[in-house]
Amino acid sequence: MKIGFIGLGRMGTGMAMNLLKAGHDLTVYNRTPDKLQPLVSHGARAARTLGNACRGEVVITMLADDAAVEGVVFGSDGVIANMPRGAIHISMSTISVALSERLAAAHAGVGQRYVAATVFGRPEAAAAGKLFIVAGGSHDAIEVCTPILRELGQSIFRIGEKPELANLVKLSGNFLIASLIESLGEALALVGKAGVDRHAYLGFLTSTLFPAPVYKTYGDLIADRHFKPAEFAAPLGFKDIRLAIAAAEGFRVPMPLANLLHDRFVTLLAQGGDDMDWSAIGQLAARESGDDGSGPVNQTSQALAQ
Amino acid sequence: MKIGFIGLGRMGTGMAMNLLKAGHDLTVYNRTPDKLQPLVSHGARAARTLGNACRGEVVITMLADDAAVEGVVFGSDGVIANMPRGAIHISMSTISVALSERLAAAHAGVGQRYVAATVFGRPEAAAAGKLFIVAGGSHDAIEVCTPILRELGQSIFRIGEKPELANLVKLSGNFLIASLIESLGEALALVGKAGVDRHAYLGFLTSTLFPAPVYKTYGDLIADRHFKPAEFAAPLGFKDIRLAIAAAEGFRVPMPLANLLHDRFVTLLAQGGDDMDWSAIGQLAARESGDDGSGPVNQTSQALAQ
Amino acid sequence: MKIGFIGLGRMGTGMAMNLLKAGHDLTVYNRTPDKLQPLVSHGARAARTLGNACRGEVVITMLADDAAVEGVVFGSDGVIANMPRGAIHISMSTISVALSERLAAAHAGVGQRYVAATVFGRPEAAAAGKLFIVAGGSHDAIEVCTPILRELGQSIFRIGEKPELANLVKLSGNFLIASLIESLGEALALVGKAGVDRHAYLGFLTSTLFPAPVYKTYGDLIADRHFKPAEFAAPLGFKDIRLAIAAAEGFRVPMPLANLLHDRFVTLLAQGGDDMDWSAIGQLAARESGDDGSGPVNQTSQALAQ
Amino acid sequence: MKIGFIGLGRMGTGMAMNLLKAGHDLTVYNRTPDKLQPLVSHGARAARTLGNACRGEVVITMLADDAAVEGVVFGSDGVIANMPRGAIHISMSTISVALSERLAAAHAGVGQRYVAATVFGRPEAAAAGKLFIVAGGSHDAIEVCTPILRELGQSIFRIGEKPELANLVKLSGNFLIASLIESLGEALALVGKAGVDRHAYLGFLTSTLFPAPVYKTYGDLIADRHFKPAEFAAPLGFKDIRLAIAAAEGFRVPMPLANLLHDRFVTLLAQGGDDMDWSAIGQLAARESGDDGSGPVNQTSQALAQ
Repeated sequence: MKIGFIGLGRMGTGMAMNLLKAGHDLTVYNRTPDKLQPLVSHGARAARTLGNACRGEVVITMLADDAAVEGVVFGSDGVIANMPRGAIHISMSTISVALSERLAAAHAGVGQRYVAATVFGRPEAAAAGKLFIVAGGSHDAIEVCTPILRELGQSIFRIGEKPELANLVKLSGNFLIASLIESLGEALALVGKAGVDRHAYLGFLTSTLFPAPVYKTYGDLIADRHFKPAEFAAPLGFKDIRLAIAAAEGFRVPMPLANLLHDRFVTLLAQGGDDMDWSAIGQLAARESGDDGSGPVNQTSQALAQ
Repeated sequence: MKIGFIGLGRMGTGMAMNLLKAGHDLTVYNRTPDKLQPLVSHGARAARTLGNACRGEVVITMLADDAAVEGVVFGSDGVIANMPRGAIHISMSTISVALSERLAAAHAGVGQRYVAATVFGRPEAAAAGKLFIVAGGSHDAIEVCTPILRELGQSIFRIGEKPELANLVKLSGNFLIASLIESLGEALALVGKAGVDRHAYLGFLTSTLFPAPVYKTYGDLIADRHFKPAEFAAPLGFKDIRLAIAAAEGFRVPMPLANLLHDRFVTLLAQGGDDMDWSAIGQLAARESGDDGSGPVNQTSQALAQ
Repeated sequence: MKIGFIGLGRMGTGMAMNLLKAGHDLTVYNRTPDKLQPLVSHGARAARTLGNACRGEVVITMLADDAAVEGVVFGSDGVIANMPRGAIHISMSTISVALSERLAAAHAGVGQRYVAATVFGRPEAAAAGKLFIVAGGSHDAIEVCTPILRELGQSIFRIGEKPELANLVKLSGNFLIASLIESLGEALALVGKAGVDRHAYLGFLTSTLFPAPVYKTYGDLIADRHFKPAEFAAPLGFKDIRLAIAAAEGFRVPMPLANLLHDRFVTLLAQGGDDMDWSAIGQLAARESGDDGSGPVNQTSQALAQ
Repeated sequence: MKIGFIGLGRMGTGMAMNLLKAGHDLTVYNRTPDKLQPLVSHGARAARTLGNACRGEVVITMLADDAAVEGVVFGSDGVIANMPRGAIHISMSTISVALSERLAAAHAGVGQRYVAATVFGRPEAAAAGKLFIVAGGSHDAIEVCTPILRELGQSIFRIGEKPELANLVKLSGNFLIASLIESLGEALALVGKAGVDRHAYLGFLTSTLFPAPVYKTYGDLIADRHFKPAEFAAPLGFKDIRLAIAAAEGFRVPMPLANLLHDRFVTLLAQGGDDMDWSAIGQLAARESGDDGSGPVNQTSQALAQ
């Protein structure tokens, strides 16, 4: 299929590469052109202008935030101005519910189609085609996109006709992960200050109650205070919590835990967290408890295999 | 081994039965004697007095709360007054860190041994010998208890020499579960009010980011608003959060999320939650959002198997 | 002085009238022209277009929110396009710190001057010229404005050269009042459910610890559950808390109490609070406690004058 | 009247002195006898035993906390064992609602009377007889006590027949003050980090919206970071918030702001606040914002007297 791909960051590069490997006719565009070379060397065409990336049946955008998406979609050289009638814009960025609604209306107004297909997974998962994808849009548009999305993800969850619900699910998912980080951070602060070996404790939890990789991944980061380099930077995590709160304002759903997370991110950023992983909010409970992490480790704690 | 077992509630009955099946010489005691019969018919001796249950090498207590444990342990007819020197009290109830420390000191003062062995799991897991157990106490006492604990649980986590840390880990674990309930409750309130099918959403989450049974179990309870009969009643959940907060006060660790959960439980109990499952705190976000759950379900949301 | 006045709502009308009484040459403008008549009958000129209200030495705007201010200030028929060089825009609306900074830069860019002069007080205070005013801007601009502001307020607090700090002080003040409302709401919920007469309790508090009119005013509203008609509507109060949080994000100051208030406002609006006074957040603690306010009043509570 | 006075701390000494000056026949008792001398030199009798202080018509206790009150009231040498039938115990300490209920029942059980008369005010106010007093108990007992209480306070608020409500009002009052401290702390952190002069800001607030001495007193302490020596130490403030939360649990009233304050006190104590004034919780927002208070003061902010 003839596809344009806009946004070659850490996620987008791997995703675009998978589409190339699957044999699609890919035209790529990035604000800073240095990211184009690896894809061109694998067969992609480099679009000289943004508009040149919008001539196919499908245009995919994978960008950092609302402002970046607004910047490429609207305006005289933008996606909307250049896409053919009937073509489909697949928006895969983590953006606000409000912007997704606005995109849907804008595309519909000029006879184009719009699908929101948000993704869970890190750059490695993107490169491996193992993302989890949530897709929203009209039935026929989703049908067209499904073969493409199958190259990118290991499972696709169809959320229904309203594209913006795919964005809402993405934001709610990041809220759930951040909640998990906060709860682990408080639990580790408590048992750690009391003298329990943090890693043994995590080993117990993840082999019993919480056998999900996210618990192990984030638990280890918090226990090791290993927040640099950031896999997913704190300002981006903060952005997502703010977008979740904005969506909750819109639907009028009080989310006190989301507000607590908001407070945590402001504190983290005020104390130098800009280049830390978002899991560094899980360090705040220990820090506030006066525990700098240098204390003795309880050597006797050990899991006993049976 | 000659074992006394005190406390034949929903958890204790199954645990005692497993010890009988394993061939132990079991004497059982319960405040209300009607619970004794099933065990006696499987070969247990019924203690006529509390003291009669305390003559063996090991005494196990499995009771509701601090007050119940204090009631059987202290006093002239209690566990301490009747246990032989060198015998071991295995305290398996979910009690405060402070009481566990007090028990350790009291037993040590009269030449008895004390092990705290707290458990995760529901009555079914107790009956099946599939509990997760966290054990704290002196190395030699734990060695003696290990064969017994292996009849009760599928894994044993040794926390070290300080028995009260086993209680702390138990409380922190229930804090983590309650946090998970609250976060799911808020996420479901948000996406549900927006029109997403709650069960499809949970199906997506538990097959991707959160493949842990606790997410499925509690997610379904919240999505179905199925809180009666209670598997684990709200007042007990509230008790555990209060004990976690009390422990955090003792170790001086601020836990804002624990405080939020405290607030949720007070609200739930103020609104008739005494006989509800503790997961009913997960309904509060939806209720406060004015969503009574009677709205239309989004029929188009569906997971697409690949 | 030749003054334009834009925005004749409940606050603006009284303020404009005071300027007329003081003998100023006033041209008034309002989006909906029906508000003009009372002022015209007292000697004001009615501007046919927005631009016509911007020809004097000073233009005052008193509007509902950021959007309203942006709507009149920018654009080809707006304040900036029509004000003479050197003239002063006094922005008295409760707007965001960010917009105030943007206004300052925009006016400076075309050689105009900008003063932010925010106000505390209700419509009665506005009509009586008894507002409390916080003014920020260059020294010379403030000097020019001072005689005008003296007609509007009983005191003027100069915040310094940065106009946006006047907006910040306004937002922080409303945060303080909302905090007071929440704290009174919780205290009244507690003592009221326990059987204390709410009015006697307030009488005690306001004659001892808290002899400030705000405690009496808001305490009575909460105790009487008298939230309609709204003096200051909940959506406006919510807007101000959101602007305070946005400012705190900008300066990176965590404000957990502001986040709690955010949650309260979302809950209130989700439950039908759009046309209630903002003090109705003070009813939520009692409502969540299951106390509908119909219980018996403790007749024996009474203040004893000495 | 023949009065026993137990508890000669910073508050009790001044109160006892006022009763002496008014001509009462006072017998005083303190756990550490060195506090007795100043009162004896003004005419008080020193009780050699606790029981000796309980022979009069009235016994007043003014102690630090629940444990101290339980220690003197119960037991064979305690207040209850030694008071004559019909005599009145006036409990003026800040204690829990639950203990006050227990005291009422215990006294009633042996034909004694019980009045809870809680006080607001600092040591200076106690010495000056200027406390604010909240009194609960039977009508006739209160009548007997009123002349005594008038020597101690500038006003007396009768809360009705249930003594424990006087304790509840005291706890709710300290909750309100702590809420005010927290809100001021957040507001000062915000405007201070933005460059507003903290003292000028407080001057504005306390001369306009919040003309109550508590705002000035606590605002100055926070602005000056002047928390030592403590007028009212953080551990005592924490105790009162915990007692307020315990009472709210009993009456089933959710108080999210009280929970937030709980969290603040744990943080303060974890970071070395044991000997700080309780208003030091008002410093936490600034500290968490990374503002150590050493920044430049905005010299241009000034209140303009009109």
